[in-house]
Amino acid sequence: MDKGNKNTKKIKPELPGGFRDFLPKDMIKRQEMIDKIKSVFESYGFSPIETPIIEKIDVLTGKSDDFNMSIFRTGIVPGKGEIKPEYFEELALRYDLTVPLARVIAANRQLPKPFKRYQVGPVFRGERQQKGRFRQFYQFDADIVGSSSIYSDIEIILLIIETMRSLGVSDFKVRINNRKVLDDLISIIGLPNQTRKKAVFRVLDKLDKISWNEVAKELKDKLMLSEKSVGLIKGFLQIRGKADDVIDSLEKFFSENGKLKPNGLIELRKIISFIKKLGISEKNWQIDLSIARGLDYYTGTVFETTLSNLKSIGSVFSGGRYDGLVNVFSSEKLPAVGASIGVDRLFVALNEEEKSDKESLTDALIVFFEEELAADYFLIAKNLREGGIKTEIYLENGKTVKEQINYALKKGIRFLVIFGSDEKKEGRVAIKDLERRKQEKVSLSMAVDYIKKQLG
Amino acid sequence: MDKGNKNTKKIKPELPGGFRDFLPKDMIKRQEMIDKIKSVFESYGFSPIETPIIEKIDVLTGKSDDFNMSIFRTGIVPGKGEIKPEYFEELALRYDLTVPLARVIAANRQLPKPFKRYQVGPVFRGERQQKGRFRQFYQFDADIVGSSSIYSDIEIILLIIETMRSLGVSDFKVRINNRKVLDDLISIIGLPNQTRKKAVFRVLDKLDKISWNEVAKELKDKLMLSEKSVGLIKGFLQIRGKADDVIDSLEKFFSENGKLKPNGLIELRKIISFIKKLGISEKNWQIDLSIARGLDYYTGTVFETTLSNLKSIGSVFSGGRYDGLVNVFSSEKLPAVGASIGVDRLFVALNEEEKSDKESLTDALIVFFEEELAADYFLIAKNLREGGIKTEIYLENGKTVKEQINYALKKGIRFLVIFGSDEKKEGRVAIKDLERRKQEKVSLSMAVDYIKKQLG
Repeated sequence: MDKGNKNTKKIKPELPGGFRDFLPKDMIKRQEMIDKIKSVFESYGFSPIETPIIEKIDVLTGKSDDFNMSIFRTGIVPGKGEIKPEYFEELALRYDLTVPLARVIAANRQLPKPFKRYQVGPVFRGERQQKGRFRQFYQFDADIVGSSSIYSDIEIILLIIETMRSLGVSDFKVRINNRKVLDDLISIIGLPNQTRKKAVFRVLDKLDKISWNEVAKELKDKLMLSEKSVGLIKGFLQIRGKADDVIDSLEKFFSENGKLKPNGLIELRKIISFIKKLGISEKNWQIDLSIARGLDYYTGTVFETTLSNLKSIGSVFSGGRYDGLVNVFSSEKLPAVGASIGVDRLFVALNEEEKSDKESLTDALIVFFEEELAADYFLIAKNLREGGIKTEIYLENGKTVKEQINYALKKGIRFLVIFGSDEKKEGRVAIKDLERRKQEKVSLSMAVDYIKKQLG
Repeated sequence: MDKGNKNTKKIKPELPGGFRDFLPKDMIKRQEMIDKIKSVFESYGFSPIETPIIEKIDVLTGKSDDFNMSIFRTGIVPGKGEIKPEYFEELALRYDLTVPLARVIAANRQLPKPFKRYQVGPVFRGERQQKGRFRQFYQFDADIVGSSSIYSDIEIILLIIETMRSLGVSDFKVRINNRKVLDDLISIIGLPNQTRKKAVFRVLDKLDKISWNEVAKELKDKLMLSEKSVGLIKGFLQIRGKADDVIDSLEKFFSENGKLKPNGLIELRKIISFIKKLGISEKNWQIDLSIARGLDYYTGTVFETTLSNLKSIGSVFSGGRYDGLVNVFSSEKLPAVGASIGVDRLFVALNEEEKSDKESLTDALIVFFEEELAADYFLIAKNLREGGIKTEIYLENGKTVKEQINYALKKGIRFLVIFGSDEKKEGRVAIKDLERRKQEKVSLSMAVDYIKKQLG
């Protein structure tokens, strides 16, 4: 690395498009949010794991011809070497945390089941460049692997509700559906072909972005569905309202169309009645038959969570049951259900409301007053830190007190600790509270208690 | 993604070489370690930032011809597209957290200075494959940017000592040197050429891996140093012992060799005398004139931290002053000093000693006993969680109590909460303490207090 001097051409300190930094103001709030989520997940008995950013390409794509996501490939280029395509044949950056989980489960059969894990970390996608779209973003997932119980589906839904509440969000809705209900719809229409079925799901998934008329056109023109089939889908999607009414109407819809044992409906009914039994207000959940979830691996219950006053940002917490995914890697059949928080979207949403910004976490700044007292500053700092007060020493010599006050104000540090030769003689420190604009002298041994009391 | 079935060929659930997973047992301990470090860094007034995994290649290499590290390049390959070299010309994965910090500073001139930040996260290097070498590993850095004060150097050294202690490590040594001292040595030898100077530093850096005789041979044969120069270097490196003695001998060494104003020595002396003044035992630090630090960007104080009973794992916490790095991106001169923890090495070292392993953080498991009581299990869990007890419900129906006890034992969950129709009638729960092997019935409202009391 060139050490740089005035004559050297400067390198632009730029990030690539689709990436961003989190500076302290945002990062402090992000950490608070992540810590709160962690604490809820741990209270439900989920344990942390971590998998690497880089995975084998076969693991990520499942060697499937269907896989057509644009992802980041990666490989080692030897120092000073040129770039060759063969360096990039084996590795890629993960695009979610679910596929790596399935790999972990298949590779570690000793893990006790049901295995409940959470993981938080960045994932990478080759999204088209546009405002607000990022190529690196955080997911925070909780999954239960090795349980086919409907109670696991229910627990994940409760976990979502509890997490949102712990973040101080009350105006949200978990929209619940079941892939099997959609499968039953498809079987009424009569689409035996898997590829066409998936295509229909993908079109339905667009319903939160484009109108029904546009969706209907796509179903007719692109997927060659008959007028009657599109009519059936329309009728199905018009089933809305209170959960009990939706269940009743669905039952009627299926029996009228000759589907007598709709498995998905039975599961959906069980989930709904249990959630009601637990007394969870319908304000925070509903059945939404248009929820399909684009990812192919879902097999049962699916859900998305939207913020009622910020629908435009889309789902902030989604997931569902995926009973076939581990089977890609292992002959052992392991059902699974889980959900993933879009940390970045949710962070944006939370910040729309919250106003208070902290530039730092520091409570007290020790003013650098006289160089002869430098060792005292370090010892006072040690004392305050041991008392639980986050303390910074102003480390530059020769700055005025005013300059140091300005620094504390800019960083949002509330207390100044002033110690000169007078204070040294008295065995006291002057503590200036920049918030309440008052200054008091206290004995050295009382400084911790004094500041703690003011902090409340 | 193919849902997989018995007839499909399975994909091997493998990680690429040089990468690994952290399962709950390790991850719980890793998180504890990272939380402790965070808490010390925050107590010193460092604020968190986060930068992306992916950076522009020019930012990482400084467009320098000297740069010859093997790094991971990356780029987006469009869905189903083939790999082309041009996709990989712009981007790479970061190999440390210091260069991205310099970029952040140059791009955000509004940040109050001195800017004290910490950052933790994975970095990536194309290391040769061998046991114990990883291609993704964590760094945890603390840096002070915009301060040329010697007190900032001192604070970083104290931060290292405090961090090690907070992790329960007492048998460590911070080995301190100064690049300017080495520069003075080089100027005595008479090596005007930067490249040769760097080459000498790199050879000296090998002293912890190969013997002096081998180093001497390399200096003579590869770098064409005269017998006399090698003799001088040998004399310099033989200066060892207590800090005060080293300082005295160094002073003598330089004056004997015609170097009258050794700047590095003045800095080193100031740091040492201040650390002694603060009463930090020499058990935990020393001057070590062989410390050179391979990275080219260091300009003053440098340090490495070794564990006295585990020297073989190398330095676990190193850094130094790098006053020129931000200048690569900006005409503004911004001095800086910082240190980086090798999280993975330190984690290995800590685990050599510690024995207790937790498979999960969960305190209590609610036994799934009768399906009619499922809603009760969810409500009891809610109550326990609200009381601060990490609670898992066994979500599978139809398993025997013995199977559920085995599950709790495997996961290291201490308390079983048993609730059947008898207990329901009584308004009580049976709580089984698997550690102390006793079982008691308590009223529902007392369950939280009872478990908390046992947990201590």
